[in-house]
Amino acid sequence: MKYITILGSTGSIGTQALEVVRDNPSIFKVSVLSALKNSALLIQQAKEFRPEVVVICDESQYQTVKDALSSLNIKVLAGEESLSEVASYLQSDIVLTALMGSVGLKPTIAAIKAGKSIALANKETLVVAGEYITALAAEYQVKILPVDSEHSAIFQCLVGEAQNEIEKIYLTASGGPFLGKGKDFLSTIKKEQALKHPNWVMGAKITIDSATLMNKGLEVIEAKWLFDLDVDQVDVIVHPQSIIHSIVQFTDGSMKAQMGVPDMKLPIQYAINYPDRLKNNFKRFNFLDYPNFSFQQADRETFRNLDLAFKALRKGGNMPCILNAANEIVVESFLNDKIGFLEMSDVIEQCMEEISFIEKPQLTDYLETDKHSRILAGELVTKSSI
Amino acid sequence: MKYITILGSTGSIGTQALEVVRDNPSIFKVSVLSALKNSALLIQQAKEFRPEVVVICDESQYQTVKDALSSLNIKVLAGEESLSEVASYLQSDIVLTALMGSVGLKPTIAAIKAGKSIALANKETLVVAGEYITALAAEYQVKILPVDSEHSAIFQCLVGEAQNEIEKIYLTASGGPFLGKGKDFLSTIKKEQALKHPNWVMGAKITIDSATLMNKGLEVIEAKWLFDLDVDQVDVIVHPQSIIHSIVQFTDGSMKAQMGVPDMKLPIQYAINYPDRLKNNFKRFNFLDYPNFSFQQADRETFRNLDLAFKALRKGGNMPCILNAANEIVVESFLNDKIGFLEMSDVIEQCMEEISFIEKPQLTDYLETDKHSRILAGELVTKSSI
Repeated sequence: MKYITILGSTGSIGTQALEVVRDNPSIFKVSVLSALKNSALLIQQAKEFRPEVVVICDESQYQTVKDALSSLNIKVLAGEESLSEVASYLQSDIVLTALMGSVGLKPTIAAIKAGKSIALANKETLVVAGEYITALAAEYQVKILPVDSEHSAIFQCLVGEAQNEIEKIYLTASGGPFLGKGKDFLSTIKKEQALKHPNWVMGAKITIDSATLMNKGLEVIEAKWLFDLDVDQVDVIVHPQSIIHSIVQFTDGSMKAQMGVPDMKLPIQYAINYPDRLKNNFKRFNFLDYPNFSFQQADRETFRNLDLAFKALRKGGNMPCILNAANEIVVESFLNDKIGFLEMSDVIEQCMEEISFIEKPQLTDYLETDKHSRILAGELVTKSSI
Repeated sequence: MKYITILGSTGSIGTQALEVVRDNPSIFKVSVLSALKNSALLIQQAKEFRPEVVVICDESQYQTVKDALSSLNIKVLAGEESLSEVASYLQSDIVLTALMGSVGLKPTIAAIKAGKSIALANKETLVVAGEYITALAAEYQVKILPVDSEHSAIFQCLVGEAQNEIEKIYLTASGGPFLGKGKDFLSTIKKEQALKHPNWVMGAKITIDSATLMNKGLEVIEAKWLFDLDVDQVDVIVHPQSIIHSIVQFTDGSMKAQMGVPDMKLPIQYAINYPDRLKNNFKRFNFLDYPNFSFQQADRETFRNLDLAFKALRKGGNMPCILNAANEIVVESFLNDKIGFLEMSDVIEQCMEEISFIEKPQLTDYLETDKHSRILAGELVTKSSI
């Protein structure tokens, strides 16, 4: 039996992870569930999966959750700080970090220090502090198992291969809902349009990031750290059908791709059951449903966020942290109709120029940088308000 | 240093294997070279690579080869029977069987019994006697490393994966030069048209087999034995660009594909240097050169050979052996303008109906079946002569 902690159980990844658990009751048991503020769903999940502990981050909802679960012998905690406490919870083999944004950093650190395997769905953790986190995982001999479909693809392609035989990797990108559009068009779009992803059903933040290609930029940074690559070993190729999830090219020129119908349950299941595959009845891919795969270069001039992410990665230090924090603010602002689609890149770029660069940041530097970048991004959004 | 025996060194695979050896003089050393009848090239190869032994199968050329190499301390043998002798040659770690047709069977058996790893480019060995050969390899704990690009692709995708987690495999097929053509057109074609393969440069026999889809049929049978699959676990998908070389679908629905520019040197190198990859300067694949991959179902009604191969595999016993022997005869006849393109399938089918079926053949049964099928196919060709 594998005991699982799911941080962010009410989000898109969290609920799909629970579907996998539901389908495999003899293999998985939930130890901990946590939610940001959706107490109704958290209560419902707790009643079904009977974890030992639940965390509701929004402290104002503590009593609601506590009362609802009072008869069930489930410990209820509240507040963001509790996430780090439960991440190191004894009765748990693997921690699925399906939190949104850089809030995932601290609980991930706590889980690594407690020797838990990490099923990483919170890419911001590696974007913000990849060097620190990967070194920590190595020190505690903890596996970081990617849940992002692209990184899961790379990870699967690398099974049985030698790390020093990677020549480069290609992360595939659907291109999002605005593939092929120009800046004139993008300057007019509204959140409703950006929230319609052609292939993947995901949370709002990541859907906007997909539309701006920032999601791919964050994935480039994540891949660098997960697979110990140089920035020049990571490339992006647009593949609108999202069937090939990513590709590894080896030093002999051979390439391996992982593919299938777009369904996040597969990488979730692969991560939490690694190294074994688990038989399931997920929809199988049929070539006759997709008789054509197409590929094109990403348009980094129009979708500047991808270019900014490559720049941040090349610069290193706390630059990806600046990029990520500013991005979290501008996406939230875009979702609140406070900023236009193209202005998001402007604000991020200005944060990257103005926040103090630290070449060798410590953990506290990351936390400070994150805070400063959010403040500056917020100010810049207010100034440029639409 | 890896010592290599190359059986069939003057053919397409043999010469490309020698290019790999030439590029890696500190890794590979040739022990044995053999040729069917191209003594001039064999002599030239022997002078460059200085094997300890060469075999010329055509005994009438023995003296020519002997004289040419007299000053070089290279042992010269003649006759097909010598192949089995040199296949078990002491100073050799791996035997590359790049012979054409079922003549590869006996030397492969000798090499396995001598404990040599087999780099198998002679698919007929497994087609004719797959059950026998794979059992023998298991008994002698010998690895059979595929050289066919499709099987190398599957083999590479399976590295690090569990055999019992294979759900099915897709062998990709270019479709050959007559993809999309109907029987009316095929009834008129000549060998010159059939010899023009769109993607791969190969020997005449395999090029014709590619045009009739028999090559894919033989590969289906080969795959069944190499990867220990049921016939229903092997499927064929036409992919005219020949970039994806084949695909494995696992029991969790995840698929892995191996891909790259079509170049036989890669699978050759992978097989002879397994399990390590070898850095090289082969042309790298560029997505922008191939912005579209397409897929379609194989037309088994028009290209009946593929259907016959599936039938032979389903029937089992000596049926694939009958199919293969008849096919060798009809292809030779087609290349000699003695039979039409479509009639090749008729002759093969008739051999499958008329030769005695043996459910559990011994090695001698395979050899007898091979002989009988060739004789009958020859007679049927003469009757249907064009």
